[in-house]
Amino acid sequence: MQRRKVIGLAGAGVVGAATAGAVAWRATGGEAGPAAPAPDRISFYGERQAGIITPAQDRLHFVAFDVITKDRAALIDMLESWTAAAARMAQGKEAGALGAVGGLPEAPPEDTGEALGLPAADLTLTIGFGPGLFDNRFGLRARKPAALADLPKFPGDALDPALSGGDICVQACANDPQVAVHAIRNLARIGMGVVSVRWSQLGFGRTSSTSTSQATPRNLFGFKDGTANLKAEETALLDDHLWVRAGDGPDWMTGGSYLVTRKIRMLVEPWDRTSLLEQETIFGRDKGEGAPLTGKGEFDEPDFAVRGDDNEPVIATTAHVRLAHPTQNGGARMLRRGYNFVDGSDGLGRLDAGLFFIAYQRDPRRQFVPVQMSLARQDQLNEYIRHVSSGIFACPPGLRAADDFWGRSLFA
Amino acid sequence: MQRRKVIGLAGAGVVGAATAGAVAWRATGGEAGPAAPAPDRISFYGERQAGIITPAQDRLHFVAFDVITKDRAALIDMLESWTAAAARMAQGKEAGALGAVGGLPEAPPEDTGEALGLPAADLTLTIGFGPGLFDNRFGLRARKPAALADLPKFPGDALDPALSGGDICVQACANDPQVAVHAIRNLARIGMGVVSVRWSQLGFGRTSSTSTSQATPRNLFGFKDGTANLKAEETALLDDHLWVRAGDGPDWMTGGSYLVTRKIRMLVEPWDRTSLLEQETIFGRDKGEGAPLTGKGEFDEPDFAVRGDDNEPVIATTAHVRLAHPTQNGGARMLRRGYNFVDGSDGLGRLDAGLFFIAYQRDPRRQFVPVQMSLARQDQLNEYIRHVSSGIFACPPGLRAADDFWGRSLFA
Ligand code: HEM
Ligand code: HEM
Repeated sequence: MQRRKVIGLAGAGVVGAATAGAVAWRATGGEAGPAAPAPDRISFYGERQAGIITPAQDRLHFVAFDVITKDRAALIDMLESWTAAAARMAQGKEAGALGAVGGLPEAPPEDTGEALGLPAADLTLTIGFGPGLFDNRFGLRARKPAALADLPKFPGDALDPALSGGDICVQACANDPQVAVHAIRNLARIGMGVVSVRWSQLGFGRTSSTSTSQATPRNLFGFKDGTANLKAEETALLDDHLWVRAGDGPDWMTGGSYLVTRKIRMLVEPWDRTSLLEQETIFGRDKGEGAPLTGKGEFDEPDFAVRGDDNEPVIATTAHVRLAHPTQNGGARMLRRGYNFVDGSDGLGRLDAGLFFIAYQRDPRRQFVPVQMSLARQDQLNEYIRHVSSGIFACPPGLRAADDFWGRSLFA
Repeated sequence: MQRRKVIGLAGAGVVGAATAGAVAWRATGGEAGPAAPAPDRISFYGERQAGIITPAQDRLHFVAFDVITKDRAALIDMLESWTAAAARMAQGKEAGALGAVGGLPEAPPEDTGEALGLPAADLTLTIGFGPGLFDNRFGLRARKPAALADLPKFPGDALDPALSGGDICVQACANDPQVAVHAIRNLARIGMGVVSVRWSQLGFGRTSSTSTSQATPRNLFGFKDGTANLKAEETALLDDHLWVRAGDGPDWMTGGSYLVTRKIRMLVEPWDRTSLLEQETIFGRDKGEGAPLTGKGEFDEPDFAVRGDDNEPVIATTAHVRLAHPTQNGGARMLRRGYNFVDGSDGLGRLDAGLFFIAYQRDPRRQFVPVQMSLARQDQLNEYIRHVSSGIFACPPGLRAADDFWGRSLFA
């Protein structure tokens, strides 16, 4: 049992006893230093932030916050508190004290309690900073990376501004959704008065593998997703395409990565009325095996030159994998790490379902943007999808020491 | 591997081959007869519908449909098709053919494919019929059970009609959310033209135990939920409180149960600002152990007569467990089977989170209604919750034979 099982306040008439079990989480933050992680725990510390090349966990809770204070010190203070809480939660501990804090029965608990008794479940918490943070409020204007430019408007975009953007994001991934939800909710609680939830998204199933050790999952169109993804084991490719290098931009981002999120509604009902033939033509891969239409095995390289009996390209010129393939995009690759979502129904008799697309990369201007521009213009898939939300965030490198905190190098 | 791994259409230029692997799911429905279930499969057939006293699975996808046809035969036909597909899916099989159906490359596949390769994951599908089905459309007026009366308006109700009611509901529970989502989505696909999704709800974590073999989970207020629930093992109590008896109403419901759903938004941010003392007072149980404030262990019986040093009742007169307890409600009990949900955020900086409350019972007029009336009037918890959707459904008994189908006894 990794989590504290005793809250320290049991039964009636013993309210005073609560104080005995009370632990201020700030005081115990030091426990969560760099150490070899136990099974089902992912180390919070390291050269890179966890949650990027970590083998994609099954569940997601993603949140984008607006900063609602102009007080720089309060913001930094919150980031310190967040870091301590995040490090504890990644160890399967509570964010803070569960009992009456500091002996005051009127003080709210410092952890919300719903993950008590649950394992760490491979929880990772990954932070990113959005373009809005680099306005005049906190003196960060000069530190804004050029790569963190607002995304252009793409043809067909149907973005809801209320579900887009944000000053700070946190991606919580875990194999237990209650653990991911608990983590985000406790960060929001700690951030009261400093940040406010702008939007949040639950993902129930991963739609990508990020490691060769993982089987490729399926998206809600029934196709394997993540086959030709960048994988954790491809370290040379990661250096070229994923991690920001010295000289790419401001130092505080060296070793980090840029995150693009797109909430993409998938129109499953019309899709379910199309034939297998059309579905496979749209992707350029077969549905069963996930092989390119010019190959047999899932990991066969697609051959875009092959033509069929009708002299048409076997992988159509408007097929998703052709348009997204590195050879069609000046070599651009990215690490996809998305999740399936279902948000109920849309009032028109249809499921409100789709893909919460997440991609990490070294420079969105040379990776996500040109690929998405090409997809938005030509992809046959567009008939069945709608991009409804969008975000871009700069995710700094990992923390190497227990006294470091999220954003320190940015605010230094 | 329980699911078919081969779709029968791989590679380019072999479209004709698709027909070889194509299986019409109707034709193979007979495979899914009553048989001993394998591990991770719950038998679809039996005296009772699965998904009621089945130990609560971890994930939920619940859907309420409107019937959009007036054609009684089409509705019955759909229910037959649903039954065959449901029986297959409960075995970890696809709803129907994954290839080009009947050799026609232009026909859409009869399964959407996203659960291919996934295990059965304890999937259960439970059907219920709402009051709206018993209007003039299908000649069912005389067969409507009196117990299926519309619920009264409760004080404080903030119901959204678009998220409430429905002619038919299906509760899909499984230990893998993709399996639950896949099941509902395929039933919706099969029902095209006959039914339309009215509302749907994903639940990411169970908030009740329904068996003494299960540990009690926690709700989003951090409290153990399901402690004093009816449990599968309490067969005598189930006969009194859960299953409809002969003579209770129309024969087609004998052996069935009535389902009440309430989507209850939980205002987690204000809750997180209250003290542990107040939280425990509101429920009448402690947060760590889940013991009644008059006891020490989770399963100790609460003693509502005990008074503290201040001569006030230790379990407050407005405490949730006092008001909901059988002794305060003429002995009424129900089987709770709810799920935690997070639907993103509400545009006001708060998580849109709560409890999707599900309760099964013999007669809502003597169980859910009086208990909820008492809670709605007096429960201190009301400051932190809002009931936003409501449903009531009659769930018939189970199917005993492979040629039986959902609703046959109702339409007979
Ligand atoms: C709902 C929307 C989308 C769906 C359903 C979808 C689905 C797929 C599928 C099934 C594959 C083939 C298997 C694989 O290699 O992963 C694929 C490949 C890919 N997708 Fe998407 N995708 C979507 C949106 C996007 C977007 C917005 C981007 C980026 C702008 C993108 C970039 C890629 C890339 C780079 C590949 C790999 C291509 C290759 O190298 O062969 N996808 N996608
Ligand atoms: C968000 C709303 C609700 C929350 C957070 C909540 C939470 C709880 C908790 C923590 C318990 C104590 C542990 C247990 O025995 O399960 C409990 C008990 C119970 N609740 Fe609720 N509940 C909610 C709504 C309801 C509603 C709407 C009803 C029915 C109208 C209900 C009926 C009961 C019953 C019958 C008990 C058992 C009482 C006993 O026999 O001691 N609850 N609830």
